[in-house]
Amino acid sequence: MSQSYILPPFHTAESFDKAIEDFRSILGAEHVEIVDSTKLDDQSYHDPPKTHDPFHIIDQDELVASIIIRPGSTEDVQEIVKAANRHRFPLWPVSIGRNFGYGGAAPRVRGSAVVDLGARMNKILELDNKQAFTLLEPGVTYKMLYEEIQRKGYNLWIDVPDLGGGSVLGNATERGVGYTPYGDHFMMHCGMEIVLPNGELIRTGMGSLPDKNQPTGSSNTWQLFPYGFGPYHDGLFTQSNYGIVTKIGMWLMPDPGGYQSYMITFSKDSDLYQAIEIIRPLRLANILQNVPSIRSATLDIAVAAPRSDFSSTGKPLTEEELDAAIKKVDTGIERWNFYGALYGPEPVRKVMWEAIKGAFGTIEGAKFYLPSDLPEKPGSVFHIRDGTLRGVPSTTELNWTNWMPNGGTLFFSPISPVTGEDAVRQYDIAKRRFTEFGFDYIGTFTVGMRELHHIIIAVYDRKNPEEKRRAFEMYKLLVQDCADAGYGEYRTHLALMDQIAGTYNWNGNSIMQLNQTIKDALDPNGIMAPGKSGVWPKQYRDLKK
Amino acid sequence: MSQSYILPPFHTAESFDKAIEDFRSILGAEHVEIVDSTKLDDQSYHDPPKTHDPFHIIDQDELVASIIIRPGSTEDVQEIVKAANRHRFPLWPVSIGRNFGYGGAAPRVRGSAVVDLGARMNKILELDNKQAFTLLEPGVTYKMLYEEIQRKGYNLWIDVPDLGGGSVLGNATERGVGYTPYGDHFMMHCGMEIVLPNGELIRTGMGSLPDKNQPTGSSNTWQLFPYGFGPYHDGLFTQSNYGIVTKIGMWLMPDPGGYQSYMITFSKDSDLYQAIEIIRPLRLANILQNVPSIRSATLDIAVAAPRSDFSSTGKPLTEEELDAAIKKVDTGIERWNFYGALYGPEPVRKVMWEAIKGAFGTIEGAKFYLPSDLPEKPGSVFHIRDGTLRGVPSTTELNWTNWMPNGGTLFFSPISPVTGEDAVRQYDIAKRRFTEFGFDYIGTFTVGMRELHHIIIAVYDRKNPEEKRRAFEMYKLLVQDCADAGYGEYRTHLALMDQIAGTYNWNGNSIMQLNQTIKDALDPNGIMAPGKSGVWPKQYRDLKK
Repeated sequence: MSQSYILPPFHTAESFDKAIEDFRSILGAEHVEIVDSTKLDDQSYHDPPKTHDPFHIIDQDELVASIIIRPGSTEDVQEIVKAANRHRFPLWPVSIGRNFGYGGAAPRVRGSAVVDLGARMNKILELDNKQAFTLLEPGVTYKMLYEEIQRKGYNLWIDVPDLGGGSVLGNATERGVGYTPYGDHFMMHCGMEIVLPNGELIRTGMGSLPDKNQPTGSSNTWQLFPYGFGPYHDGLFTQSNYGIVTKIGMWLMPDPGGYQSYMITFSKDSDLYQAIEIIRPLRLANILQNVPSIRSATLDIAVAAPRSDFSSTGKPLTEEELDAAIKKVDTGIERWNFYGALYGPEPVRKVMWEAIKGAFGTIEGAKFYLPSDLPEKPGSVFHIRDGTLRGVPSTTELNWTNWMPNGGTLFFSPISPVTGEDAVRQYDIAKRRFTEFGFDYIGTFTVGMRELHHIIIAVYDRKNPEEKRRAFEMYKLLVQDCADAGYGEYRTHLALMDQIAGTYNWNGNSIMQLNQTIKDALDPNGIMAPGKSGVWPKQYRDLKK
Repeated sequence: MSQSYILPPFHTAESFDKAIEDFRSILGAEHVEIVDSTKLDDQSYHDPPKTHDPFHIIDQDELVASIIIRPGSTEDVQEIVKAANRHRFPLWPVSIGRNFGYGGAAPRVRGSAVVDLGARMNKILELDNKQAFTLLEPGVTYKMLYEEIQRKGYNLWIDVPDLGGGSVLGNATERGVGYTPYGDHFMMHCGMEIVLPNGELIRTGMGSLPDKNQPTGSSNTWQLFPYGFGPYHDGLFTQSNYGIVTKIGMWLMPDPGGYQSYMITFSKDSDLYQAIEIIRPLRLANILQNVPSIRSATLDIAVAAPRSDFSSTGKPLTEEELDAAIKKVDTGIERWNFYGALYGPEPVRKVMWEAIKGAFGTIEGAKFYLPSDLPEKPGSVFHIRDGTLRGVPSTTELNWTNWMPNGGTLFFSPISPVTGEDAVRQYDIAKRRFTEFGFDYIGTFTVGMRELHHIIIAVYDRKNPEEKRRAFEMYKLLVQDCADAGYGEYRTHLALMDQIAGTYNWNGNSIMQLNQTIKDALDPNGIMAPGKSGVWPKQYRDLKK
């Protein structure tokens, strides 16, 4: 007889029931839901899905939760964590569950309890106009934060990733990026509250300095100075399984006093080299003030229309088909499209813009646009980016997943220096594998302070097992291709975590030894997000021996 | 019979000798020096002193090393650490030993081995003009780095703290600050190599991705992207005793294409409130682009001349004496003096300068100066700052320690919000205690992104035991005064580490529980910098029970 729920490792139906009983006695039965694993395909079951990865790259029921737990407070989280220790029950904390492209809400270990922090813990605890910061619970989305700022009429901007429906806290703890001058979300966070794997509660930085006169009970500098005194812990709790972040401070950008987005298009694939060589010094000099991106034509085409509009061969678009598609969507795009913005008063923007035009103008055929130069229409990426680059949450950017029917996707994101040589090598590695495996290369280079995030995307039909398997095989080879060339991923999908952690193996993978030593000290029962970022508790490591 | 050297805790003369023998067999006898504790007063014995705190606030021979060890390589450091484990010998790593005001090279535990990393490990391993970064060993000073950049004719700036003789690596790992837009040294570092307390070697971030084709053996993104994959560790190795940092990457600022320093003076003590209220929005808007500082008159007077030039009463300067001293030094200063700079091409600087003048012009009696407005002469702080604010290392800034004969000093550095109310409260707390204890208040507010570092300085005669005791008593009370008001220190002198760590006691000092758990896991033998930042290994904690 098949059971409709999934057991976590080391558990029997009996021990499972006991754990559920305990969790329910803490939170009330209505906040501990057993996942019906027959309903994963039902879009209305949970939206966004809290149960599994909607963009599954391996079998849909591989990365699936057994239960969903919805704590209502930090104290609830502490009690749940303590109960998980009693029952050796693996937890998988998520803020909202919209970590799309990296696994969504799905747990690394089948049968884990997804701790759905955002379901009830979704308050904006502080929003300070004068000092330009906020203190948030896990369930606050970019959209909620943006709307609250508008409602209050504050002169503050937020920084959003491509989609506005995700958790601000979740994105920062995953070290996600956005596109304004505050694009490095980890760098722009300030102060955390964290439930450790033993249920103990800490506040980082100045948060551990008490002040009874403040609403938080911590120093009024908690969201102003990140480091505090002694070891600075915050980084340890990003992309990790060392605790559950229950509050985070984020710095907000004051309205810069002026804004102008622009698009620069390049007509040849080979322009990538020169464009990147131009970007580097401009970004270092902060003439490119934000986190600009240079996107492949395919990405922008896919936002406008499905693949079937341009080809029915089932093979990657040919050069001719690609050029025809660029023409057909007619949004101004060419082979590579650079989206940037200027921030500040008009005279400052003018200086920057002249420098930018002068520099990129040396590329033959480069075209410069302001939003008013092109008609606003569905699928016009430029007009979406115009909002994103000033921190207006978008909900339409993920439209490119419609490139294929039942489109699934997985982000593969190696880091590279900002040099033409490295960008071209990255592009060549990806393009070669995509062509070999029959996918259209879709990619974007996002420019951080001194590095490129190369986000490489395959869109596959997730109801087509062969295609899915093919995409996954390709990604596994790409991990190794990139590692061989000295490029590593900054973030990854659940299914690739072990492999990618394995590429960070300098000196006999001494960094993983350190990760495991800390893991064993903080989480001896191995209940906190086992396997996250390739870090496994002792019990699971023993299992693999 | 008195011995000329000092034994570390848990050691006999015999076990000490065995350890020395082991250290010497690893490095050669010439690189393991036994400290002659009778020579601490001899300035030529070690310059800067590696043996003790030259600005001792408690008994000079309280915080003293037993031996000095000079490793020549990372491998040497690993071997020394392993030997220290064999002999349970406490190590105290220093880069150069110029952590003046916070203890210099002195160890927290009497009789520790000072590991003088900078003595032989002092190479600039990489200096990349194109990507604006450097990779350094512990012994590289600001001055060395600055001179190498000039020698190569690179268009790069460095960011220096007040003095240029210290270690770039040491300052960043202590989370020191400088005064250009790259003033947050921890934020501007990228990648570390660390010997763990068990002798194992890690590289953080992208450093753990190997690349045989790179000179470092690590990915070419090691100094370009700080975070790597999985938990981000670097913060854990700052102000901590979890490892010895043997290499660090630092980002360098490209020449901004223009520079103009300025001074704004305020004639009344009470102008502090309004000045800080003006600074906050300007800094948030990045119109104040760097880490500016607003210094008390006493600090700038002390740079110019000793106290005896202005008063012989032995009591804190009166208001009248202070005004007379301001007149006498005649460097343009008044009660508070704000030092800032503009960076960028002329039209950009012009926009900033107009905004700054307009804002501060609302303070009655505020005066604006460019360096050319005032004669350059010894003791002119403005002309020193003109260099510091563009990253030119200075060696004269510490002249204010001559305020008293045999001047010693201790930096006390609470963090506060950037509000007039908080600044005035900070100033009042300090001024009251200084007056009560008979010292001249000397202070400076340094403006980070969203917080003030209030650096409070007492200069005392370190050969006068009564005066020293008085200063120390005052500091201990100030720690509590500030904690009561919700202010905590960002960094501190050895002698105050325990007390200050004790103020970060939110939720039963849960952060210290975490620190100790990590300490015990990484350093079970308790050999690495015991007591640093108040974190004690288990053996020492047991001793105190």
